[in-house]
Amino acid sequence: MGDSRPIGVFDSGLGGLTVAKEIFRLMPRERIIYLGDTARVPYGGKSEETIRRFGLQDARTLLDLDVKMLVVACNTVSSVAIDYLERHIKEVPVIGVVLPGARAAATRSAEKRVGVIGTAATVRSGAYAKAINSIDPGIKVYGKPCPLFVPLVEEGLIDSDITRLVVQHYLYEMVDLGIDSLILGCTHYPILMEVIQSTVGNRIQLVDSALWTAKEAQHIMRALGTEYPAAQEQQAPAKRAEQFTVEASEGFAASRFLVSDVTPNFESVAETLLGAGLPGIEKVSVEELEEKEA
Amino acid sequence: MGDSRPIGVFDSGLGGLTVAKEIFRLMPRERIIYLGDTARVPYGGKSEETIRRFGLQDARTLLDLDVKMLVVACNTVSSVAIDYLERHIKEVPVIGVVLPGARAAATRSAEKRVGVIGTAATVRSGAYAKAINSIDPGIKVYGKPCPLFVPLVEEGLIDSDITRLVVQHYLYEMVDLGIDSLILGCTHYPILMEVIQSTVGNRIQLVDSALWTAKEAQHIMRALGTEYPAAQEQQAPAKRAEQFTVEASEGFAASRFLVSDVTPNFESVAETLLGAGLPGIEKVSVEELEEKEA
Repeated sequence: MGDSRPIGVFDSGLGGLTVAKEIFRLMPRERIIYLGDTARVPYGGKSEETIRRFGLQDARTLLDLDVKMLVVACNTVSSVAIDYLERHIKEVPVIGVVLPGARAAATRSAEKRVGVIGTAATVRSGAYAKAINSIDPGIKVYGKPCPLFVPLVEEGLIDSDITRLVVQHYLYEMVDLGIDSLILGCTHYPILMEVIQSTVGNRIQLVDSALWTAKEAQHIMRALGTEYPAAQEQQAPAKRAEQFTVEASEGFAASRFLVSDVTPNFESVAETLLGAGLPGIEKVSVEELEEKEA
Repeated sequence: MGDSRPIGVFDSGLGGLTVAKEIFRLMPRERIIYLGDTARVPYGGKSEETIRRFGLQDARTLLDLDVKMLVVACNTVSSVAIDYLERHIKEVPVIGVVLPGARAAATRSAEKRVGVIGTAATVRSGAYAKAINSIDPGIKVYGKPCPLFVPLVEEGLIDSDITRLVVQHYLYEMVDLGIDSLILGCTHYPILMEVIQSTVGNRIQLVDSALWTAKEAQHIMRALGTEYPAAQEQQAPAKRAEQFTVEASEGFAASRFLVSDVTPNFESVAETLLGAGLPGIEKVSVEELEEKEA
């Protein structure tokens, strides 16, 4: 039982594959239709108006393919445009990555000092701070945009002196401010988890929004009875440990991966982010879908 | 006399302002209509098909505004799509940045070993190597994509330890290969000229495509009689020295700057690249102009 239709997951590019990975880990039989707007990536330096417009075009592309839920894997769209998307999309539930990550950090910060790193648009929006303070107004939230992290990951510079120096450059102030939790508010950042952790020290816990978003998706689908298969028919999910591989998830082989541009390096970038090669990609056009303004 | 219509200059984003700057320096009374496709920047990691499509949309947007010449300030478009643009655009001359830069390097390399740095698409295209070898087939050309340089410039990390480390990371192999000339094949790279020069050493001369492209534009307009004002009515241009400022050019104040997105950091980035604040920007849509395929 349950709803066997796929979950729609979209991102400005391939970064959202880290969210898809957590969904496959937690719900290995769910199928995903993933959309990466690789022709217009990145969104993080763009205006709110453009981010809203692009986000709605991405969402509509997936809705046309009959998904049962929309997961906005892009932190930038989640920060700037989630209300806008919810206003325009009534057909299926829409969830972003900001609220789940914010909730996880808010309930775990003993010192009540949380750091948020992400794109310029994500940090400027203050979306994580608003979400955290709606849970606990006493928590101080410090934001810092880290625009060099995504190109470092895409260049494969994961564990290098350059990356350590850039991590220090961006994060030394936050460490001095005494944060005890740091939200990785961009889909690429979990790939840098080890170098970030070793640079900021073990006193600071890293909060991976991708992981908490997968849990939130499951929670909502359970409430609506749309999880597939229904909870009572499931076996225990794979542990968050070495033995998990995306390829072992039944849903992965039946999932679809759409991009707006077949970029030359997509295979290596996808491999880095998903920990597995993509079974195949399909090119779609997202630009022509013009939204009706509210 | 001469043709007082503006010169159209376009780029994937704001980087092409370094080319606009050289045009103002060399021909201070020429007006420019600049177009930066800031909604879809960067182009350098995208496929050839997408780069061609975006490039033609940009070009058509400027043609509709009655320019007398098109300068493709974007190295990526110049490398991948200049033939395609020339086939589709018959109304005005179209010049790119690759040929002028290649010619300057080919005639200056005593050791006959030239390095080219740029985006992934520019280097993969081999366009600079082809252009250099059409002049002198005996020159060895070594290419290296440097995707971190643009975000470093846009982050304002011009003279920092991080940037020096990244320059070393990308360029140590080329230095070992004995190049004596290095083409800065991306519009942002002239901003890093000093740190690149001090890292690779003074034995290697840096070739700035922006500068040679401005000269090429002047050369072609003189041949066609469209330079404004005509050569015999001109005063000596400003020297390539400290005294030059873009604001002092008569054409600058009468120029227009179009973008497809009003990005939040455009003012600081434009200031870095142009050495002057923009007098004002206008937002245009470039996506809707669909080209007819050849």
